[in-house]
Amino acid sequence: MQSVHASLPEERDLILAAASGSGVFTAEEVRTVAEMFDDYVASGAARSGYHFCSCRQAGRLLGFACWGPTPLTDGTWDLYWICTAREAQKNGVGRSLFEAVETSIRAAGGRLIVIYTSSTPAYAAARRFYEKMGCSHSATITDYYRQGDDLLIYSKHVAGAQ
Amino acid sequence: MQSVHASLPEERDLILAAASGSGVFTAEEVRTVAEMFDDYVASGAARSGYHFCSCRQAGRLLGFACWGPTPLTDGTWDLYWICTAREAQKNGVGRSLFEAVETSIRAAGGRLIVIYTSSTPAYAAARRFYEKMGCSHSATITDYYRQGDDLLIYSKHVAGAQ
Repeated sequence: MQSVHASLPEERDLILAAASGSGVFTAEEVRTVAEMFDDYVASGAARSGYHFCSCRQAGRLLGFACWGPTPLTDGTWDLYWICTAREAQKNGVGRSLFEAVETSIRAAGGRLIVIYTSSTPAYAAARRFYEKMGCSHSATITDYYRQGDDLLIYSKHVAGAQ
Repeated sequence: MQSVHASLPEERDLILAAASGSGVFTAEEVRTVAEMFDDYVASGAARSGYHFCSCRQAGRLLGFACWGPTPLTDGTWDLYWICTAREAQKNGVGRSLFEAVETSIRAAGGRLIVIYTSSTPAYAAARRFYEKMGCSHSATITDYYRQGDDLLIYSKHVAGAQ
């Protein structure tokens, strides 16, 4: 039985291992996740602006998500990362995490979820996943990450938001 | 004679006054500029990721700009703010600032400048300015800042970049 909960400080290593092992995060991105997680643990979600949740089953960490309010907006939230451990893929972990994030954002009065991702083949599964979760591909910035690697912005209006 | 230089710590109050007095920045945005400027002064441009330049003439501060490398990209830079003091508008201050920013980004090996702005009437002059500077309106995220206030993303490939 999978369960999703606000990430615990002692899950740091498992979360970073899931990110590294996913095959999608670069070393720099894993370091960024670590910095955001350390902020979340040190200052809390509200002050740091970074929320984390973990999906576990029988003690194993199957995935995590990180999201937070977009600065200078009223009711827009960034979904920074959503990651399923490689060995747990295709088991609904991503959906459980996404639904937990959406529920949390709705409870906080959020209206809009925005996701920044890449156009490269490594992110094809991620893009299909966002579309399955009801996100729309709203915008493209060509060559954003590097030459030939575009930024794709997905967004979703939060169901039931005010 | 206008001149543009890397902003000096003692220009903090003038920069914040220019932002407040522009009539476009909200109080929260002015606080954000202050936080970024304090990071720039405390840690320097390279470590903070925030570069600032000021345009002055005969001792008066006519405007400022703030920009920095976009995290997790190779060669993309965000132009966070560009602001001309209300009484100095239509004197080429914005162009001088924009050209200084572009020169600095090119010198740092940057390829792409990305600008996030709003769809509201208050930003109509800003949008015309970016287009005059050769930026293209690349993307829109509806209701991003708040209901009825869209995010518009402008971008410009840096001339002469590798």
